[in-house]
Amino acid sequence: MAMAHERGESGIGQLASALTRRRGALAGLLANRLSDRPLLVSAGQPPARNYPDNTYEFRASSHFLYLAGLPMEGAALLLHRGQSTLFVHRSTEADALWHGETASPESLQVATGVDAVRYLDELEGVTAGLSGLLRLPLRSAVASAEEQVLLDALIELRLCHDDHAVSEMRRAAAVTVRAHRAGMAVTRPGVRVSVIRAAMEREILAENFTNAYGSIVTTCGEVLHTHDRSGTCGPSDLLLADVGAESDLGWASDVTRTWPTGGRFSPSQRAMYELVLASQLAAIAAVKPGARYRDIHLVACRVLVAGLRDVGLLAGEVDGLLERGAHALFFPHGIGHLLGLDVHDMEDFGDRAGYAPGRQRSQQFGLCYLRLDRDLQPGMAVTIEPGIYFVPAILRSERLLAPLRGDFRPDKLGQFADVRGIRIEDDVLVTATGHEVLTAQLGKRPDEVEAMVSSASSAC
Amino acid sequence: MAMAHERGESGIGQLASALTRRRGALAGLLANRLSDRPLLVSAGQPPARNYPDNTYEFRASSHFLYLAGLPMEGAALLLHRGQSTLFVHRSTEADALWHGETASPESLQVATGVDAVRYLDELEGVTAGLSGLLRLPLRSAVASAEEQVLLDALIELRLCHDDHAVSEMRRAAAVTVRAHRAGMAVTRPGVRVSVIRAAMEREILAENFTNAYGSIVTTCGEVLHTHDRSGTCGPSDLLLADVGAESDLGWASDVTRTWPTGGRFSPSQRAMYELVLASQLAAIAAVKPGARYRDIHLVACRVLVAGLRDVGLLAGEVDGLLERGAHALFFPHGIGHLLGLDVHDMEDFGDRAGYAPGRQRSQQFGLCYLRLDRDLQPGMAVTIEPGIYFVPAILRSERLLAPLRGDFRPDKLGQFADVRGIRIEDDVLVTATGHEVLTAQLGKRPDEVEAMVSSASSAC
Repeated sequence: MAMAHERGESGIGQLASALTRRRGALAGLLANRLSDRPLLVSAGQPPARNYPDNTYEFRASSHFLYLAGLPMEGAALLLHRGQSTLFVHRSTEADALWHGETASPESLQVATGVDAVRYLDELEGVTAGLSGLLRLPLRSAVASAEEQVLLDALIELRLCHDDHAVSEMRRAAAVTVRAHRAGMAVTRPGVRVSVIRAAMEREILAENFTNAYGSIVTTCGEVLHTHDRSGTCGPSDLLLADVGAESDLGWASDVTRTWPTGGRFSPSQRAMYELVLASQLAAIAAVKPGARYRDIHLVACRVLVAGLRDVGLLAGEVDGLLERGAHALFFPHGIGHLLGLDVHDMEDFGDRAGYAPGRQRSQQFGLCYLRLDRDLQPGMAVTIEPGIYFVPAILRSERLLAPLRGDFRPDKLGQFADVRGIRIEDDVLVTATGHEVLTAQLGKRPDEVEAMVSSASSAC
Repeated sequence: MAMAHERGESGIGQLASALTRRRGALAGLLANRLSDRPLLVSAGQPPARNYPDNTYEFRASSHFLYLAGLPMEGAALLLHRGQSTLFVHRSTEADALWHGETASPESLQVATGVDAVRYLDELEGVTAGLSGLLRLPLRSAVASAEEQVLLDALIELRLCHDDHAVSEMRRAAAVTVRAHRAGMAVTRPGVRVSVIRAAMEREILAENFTNAYGSIVTTCGEVLHTHDRSGTCGPSDLLLADVGAESDLGWASDVTRTWPTGGRFSPSQRAMYELVLASQLAAIAAVKPGARYRDIHLVACRVLVAGLRDVGLLAGEVDGLLERGAHALFFPHGIGHLLGLDVHDMEDFGDRAGYAPGRQRSQQFGLCYLRLDRDLQPGMAVTIEPGIYFVPAILRSERLLAPLRGDFRPDKLGQFADVRGIRIEDDVLVTATGHEVLTAQLGKRPDEVEAMVSSASSAC
């Protein structure tokens, strides 16, 4: 547990206190709603990559990290009758040879604040005597009625972040900001896209953090989820980078910037960039307690619709265009999502976390991809990430275009051939009075972005 | 399949030819030994990291890569009656939106040289009509008699690499060499170990390659499999880095260097380093067709034993020390392993690939960790990686020391307190007349290593 050691005694104490409060809050909910049924939360094991001994880097289950704090392979946390017991691997002689000295039960108890630490080889004996044991992660795809109560309790807790969580998300955000600056600084025509990605991820690895998700770094920004990094920067491409760090305790950040590979936006690129930025700023301004997230999505869409009409790609009244979802031709995805221990926080529960009870996904193209529709509360963290994309699969789709025949002006597309895809994304914390942009240190005005790219030519 | 495109037409043709030869050779073995039973080889899917949509980077099964060449998520290759059919995902409208245009069946057929390309939604219908279908990866932990015949056929083919495989391993080796140079160049006292790892992996990512395995980068070289990168370089530590790239077609390299964080080996560090290097060079010199790999292990051990006796850590006759395995107190692991598509090639088959029929692992401490005991043949690739480690769990173990009481001189340990762990590892190809070190471009003489570290102070 070198990471606990690195944080110093006060860091350990703060983590242990936060974990103790979270476990206490969950125990209270379970006692009230589930007659105090025991709960076992497992950290999991790293999956094999190509053979059993060659695994991917271990990532503990987010529920385990939320309640036990540290990424301990194979460990499990038992909560029962207000008591918390952490079960950890018992170190063998072979472990000492191959993996060195491991943290003592005493040090783990101090670091996590649990009531007791025991060994995993004792777990089966303990759980055999417990009736009605609930488990996380769930063992089947369909949650029982009791499990649904458990999920709702966890969602209730994890929706609004405590101070320790926010401080972790700030750490992740700070490293993400550095990664984007590093990416811009190495960008110039002729540079391979993989080199830009490498410069960005280097910042994350240098901090001993990981990627919160597979990086998207591409000159084909219109391919929304591309992980192809085989291209090379042309003289006047846009480079879209959606890269986020995850702290060593598992908390995520999620940031997108789009910058010109040659250091200067073309007029068409600048027009679309400024439109996306205006849309993002309007959406961020709407983030405050009580605001419905779907309305924030629509705030962004309204700005985009008006702008797309102004440049002639759409035609007609803004209200009607918005109602028919015409913006989705260029902005097909949602404005963002919950952010926390998962980059799409608690998406392992499907829409149960993202959608408030009684709300469900729209059937409309575009809105159907919105991952979050709750009324915001202080402590929630969300992304705000509008974009404009020229996606051939959309702009040539008879099915999608049919209801928008009068709205869309394909003859204007040629003017924006050098745009392809633009997205601007920041991480936003809902505060008591409004919001705070956790990734505000990373500039996004066109001139700021151009300056960060141009700085490459003077760097060594 | 941007990567195929990048390779140009001749690169595609070479890959397709190699794959066709491999499939033909396997079909011949299956026809002879398994009455031409059909075989389905699946590429697999990337596992979830923290929720289903957030996966680890995809890595296709090595058997699939060996026979179908390209990492295609979810794809499967059917071999039957001398015909090869590749089954791939049928692109949907949603795929075009999120993932862009995918390679056409025609381009995949050209790239892989298969007889036909079909869609995965047709696979079940096809396999339903086939009796006795064999599958890879195996569906159960215990192989049936027929499956054992299949495994042995694959081992027979994959043990000795063809030209295309060797060219891929050269590509991986070249990037690995760059990674180690980059790591040395950023090393200096006060630098975080994670920064060194990041500089190394940046080189791998910049090439659009991946790590063949989780990097070991540490100042605690005696912790053999540590993945803790939380330390900081002291003024006179040794930094051990075991980092290897994997090419975009999945072929591995595996290299270790150990260098002084301050740019100069201390006398004790230099003495141990030179001993490990002498041991490695002696072992490499013994690599040739017909040589038994265990004997090469023992060549290295003999050099180590003699050197450890010369500095007083061991006492007695070399032959007796070697027989009793006294070297394992300081060199507990094996001299290396097979290298190919897996960094421990075909270790998904346990010792079936590494140990020739009739041979099995020794019970002796040290030798029991040897992963390979075959007679070498041209085309095999192996690592040669001796080391010296001062592992507390070994040097304080009553059980391990008991049979070596008269051999071991613990009073000399204090002289080597600044050594901890040293390993030197290269990738070696067995040729028709001897061997070729694939990673020879990376210097390893003490003065060469010191120069690469010292270059950091003059770099910008």
